[in-house]
Amino acid sequence: MQIEDYIFGKNAVLETLRTKKRTINKILFQKGLHTDSKIEEIINLAKQNNILFQFAPKEKFSQFKEYSYQGVVAMCAPIKYKDLYEFIEHAPKNAKVIVLDGVEDPHNVGSIIRTAVCAGFDAVILPKRRSAVVNSTVAKSSAGAINHIDLIIVNSLSGAIEILKKNNYWVIATEAKAKDNYFEVDYTNSNIVIVMGSEKSGISKTILNQADYRVKIPMLMNFDSLNVANAAGIIIYETVKQNIQNQKNVV
Amino acid sequence: MQIEDYIFGKNAVLETLRTKKRTINKILFQKGLHTDSKIEEIINLAKQNNILFQFAPKEKFSQFKEYSYQGVVAMCAPIKYKDLYEFIEHAPKNAKVIVLDGVEDPHNVGSIIRTAVCAGFDAVILPKRRSAVVNSTVAKSSAGAINHIDLIIVNSLSGAIEILKKNNYWVIATEAKAKDNYFEVDYTNSNIVIVMGSEKSGISKTILNQADYRVKIPMLMNFDSLNVANAAGIIIYETVKQNIQNQKNVV
Repeated sequence: MQIEDYIFGKNAVLETLRTKKRTINKILFQKGLHTDSKIEEIINLAKQNNILFQFAPKEKFSQFKEYSYQGVVAMCAPIKYKDLYEFIEHAPKNAKVIVLDGVEDPHNVGSIIRTAVCAGFDAVILPKRRSAVVNSTVAKSSAGAINHIDLIIVNSLSGAIEILKKNNYWVIATEAKAKDNYFEVDYTNSNIVIVMGSEKSGISKTILNQADYRVKIPMLMNFDSLNVANAAGIIIYETVKQNIQNQKNVV
Repeated sequence: MQIEDYIFGKNAVLETLRTKKRTINKILFQKGLHTDSKIEEIINLAKQNNILFQFAPKEKFSQFKEYSYQGVVAMCAPIKYKDLYEFIEHAPKNAKVIVLDGVEDPHNVGSIIRTAVCAGFDAVILPKRRSAVVNSTVAKSSAGAINHIDLIIVNSLSGAIEILKKNNYWVIATEAKAKDNYFEVDYTNSNIVIVMGSEKSGISKTILNQADYRVKIPMLMNFDSLNVANAAGIIIYETVKQNIQNQKNVV
């Protein structure tokens, strides 16, 4: 069993039980744990769904000691990834996709997935290499959001972007030295792909060349740059804002 | 010496040397460390500024083992906080301030300070109690940004907000159940205070009642909520965007 097949912590386990996007095989509680409303809800949902659960002594959790598991660990069937073609076939009108090109910190990957879910995005695309795998840190940083969105892993990111472009998606790449600001692009009435690059080296050249737009987040101080998860959140919510305002104008 | 008087890691130390906002008394390098361009720049800047530096064996760093120090630790004079009245007196026209009401995770506090600096904000106000002190985790998560902005620590947050209001600041509080969206407020041509609440319990009632506006970030999925640092980034950059667009319209 891989570490990404465990879910750690009350919130993440509860979220997975509620959404049923991942199959939980068994839940382990640490013996002598203080019971609160979340633990009770986990137990109730486990009973309702015929999921095994067990109270185990602290020693049993020593293998998880590097994870913040708050006395609760769920063992899952492996994460199901979505196929890109299948996603495109069933995607809603004006689909919103985020592509992570080499974002390596699993906290950032999780945090971006969380924001993408809050913003009603439809998929997150990650390359097989160079990025954080969707491990338990990603799952936990996403606060369970990985169960609410299609996760697509591809061998070639630029291949995936080519396919998306052929299927009528507009590709917006973020780049520190872009001319246009992120809020000068129209994100309404179309399928949108937002590409975020790695904190160190940005988006790869091939993908920058494929992009329909390159945008920057303006820096008002002569200072380093934003954390990639914050940068993603700022652009993701610009699309939300434009779409809400656009709907109001239509109505 | 308090732990907040150390700076850990290449980037944070380099940033502090460049900006000179904090006085570094001494820099320790771990012996046998692989030298890269950042280490070289740190050494050059230390020499230029007559700052002591020393190569020490790994054992000497064992006291810092819970911090990600990348072989470099700087010892500083304590962080200098700004007085609120002094800040107000010298603040620029249309000053932008962020208030953190009980944000406890030091990574989030650091991340918010980093975004605030990128967005050209003028100050971050934290309460003495309930919030993360500006410790080395905050400093590191801010990527050195704590040296670029006025940090104000107050005994009473609501007292500070009252003072700001009397001095012509508009107070915008974020609340999940607010009626208005964050982008429906005008952030231009005025002094602005953005208040972010704790992840668990939001903004305290007293402060919500003091606010001139309450705004929410719309959630497009029935899902938990945003990470507070991402939420702050989204609102902070809405103010940036409005001010850039406003300046273009004026010109």
